[in-house]
Amino acid sequence: MTDIDTIISALRQFNQERDWDQFHNGKDLAIGLSVEAAELLECFLWKQPEEASIDKIREELADVLNFAFQIADKYGLDIKEITMDKIRRNAEKYPVEKSKGSAKKYDEL
Amino acid sequence: MTDIDTIISALRQFNQERDWDQFHNGKDLAIGLSVEAAELLECFLWKQPEEASIDKIREELADVLNFAFQIADKYGLDIKEITMDKIRRNAEKYPVEKSKGSAKKYDEL
Amino acid sequence: MTDIDTIISALRQFNQERDWDQFHNGKDLAIGLSVEAAELLECFLWKQPEEASIDKIREELADVLNFAFQIADKYGLDIKEITMDKIRRNAEKYPVEKSKGSAKKYDEL
Amino acid sequence: MTDIDTIISALRQFNQERDWDQFHNGKDLAIGLSVEAAELLECFLWKQPEEASIDKIREELADVLNFAFQIADKYGLDIKEITMDKIRRNAEKYPVEKSKGSAKKYDEL
Repeated sequence: MTDIDTIISALRQFNQERDWDQFHNGKDLAIGLSVEAAELLECFLWKQPEEASIDKIREELADVLNFAFQIADKYGLDIKEITMDKIRRNAEKYPVEKSKGSAKKYDEL
Repeated sequence: MTDIDTIISALRQFNQERDWDQFHNGKDLAIGLSVEAAELLECFLWKQPEEASIDKIREELADVLNFAFQIADKYGLDIKEITMDKIRRNAEKYPVEKSKGSAKKYDEL
Repeated sequence: MTDIDTIISALRQFNQERDWDQFHNGKDLAIGLSVEAAELLECFLWKQPEEASIDKIREELADVLNFAFQIADKYGLDIKEITMDKIRRNAEKYPVEKSKGSAKKYDEL
Repeated sequence: MTDIDTIISALRQFNQERDWDQFHNGKDLAIGLSVEAAELLECFLWKQPEEASIDKIREELADVLNFAFQIADKYGLDIKEITMDKIRRNAEKYPVEKSKGSAKKYDEL
């Protein structure tokens, strides 16, 4: 079993034991993900990046990932496939020669 | 190499080729993650969960995951470890006998 | 003094008394606004719209508004002018005859 | 009519003309607000605060405010009352002598 399968399998078991699948429609999972992403972001509020607490980042990032993995599982999306595919397409949108050392968005390059 | 290592390795190479590590402080990565989480959420705006486009969900979820993986890599966090650890601690916060079939937050149980 | 001026004036005084203007750059104010918008959103998580607590909505909406007003003040933007102007432009983007009774985005009309 | 009443009145007319009240439940309005807050936040991504485009900030802030005003109207909340009330309570949570010149959260003071 791959790492990702191990995590998704643990999430499935957690939800089945609590009979929580009934609440886990895509819309509420996406809301949960946004809420957790904001809690991660709050670690940096009024701070320089290096002042944020790594313990809090660890906590909130785990919540973000667990929601993201549940959304992938809900829609039968293969995490390795969709992320690697996106990296390939971003490589085309941001060709090295145009984007090297630049933080511009692809439509401003 | 595990599947997570494969993804992170591809993200590192992508960023190194473009010399983008200079922009990738934790604060901006967390902003990027929140922005992508909101784009995923927008797939569901004014819609019933089942009306959302799975192609758009796939796109935006990939962006969310790639930002989350980069944050993990930035802080040297092991994704399998932090997510499995969080599932274990959530299992304690939400004991089966109290939380089964309930969507209440742990502090309302 | 208009209602909006009264609120902005109270926010200015609050910040000046605490010497907080030094922290209030646009980027952190926008982070704060996103965090509060997520807290408002969390009122609705796993719920039907009518199940959300109006007391919590009131709390979080006030935080959202106070951040939004501070951003307007930071950039010298006139709230009545920018919102009324946006309503006018949205009226052109969403002509009544095309958008009546439809929740489609303008680029799908 | 106060300036806030003028804005809310224009938003009501806009929605009535398009028969959009049917879509405007609190949950979707809160999603819309979060999405717009993230678009405002994106103005600052990979940037120093002073590098953000004020034209884009103006655009996105107007969207944020219009959603926030619609949520207030939806729940019959008086914007001046809830924001002024929040400022008063924040003044108690953050007493001047403890919070002056400090960006700490009230529970860390």
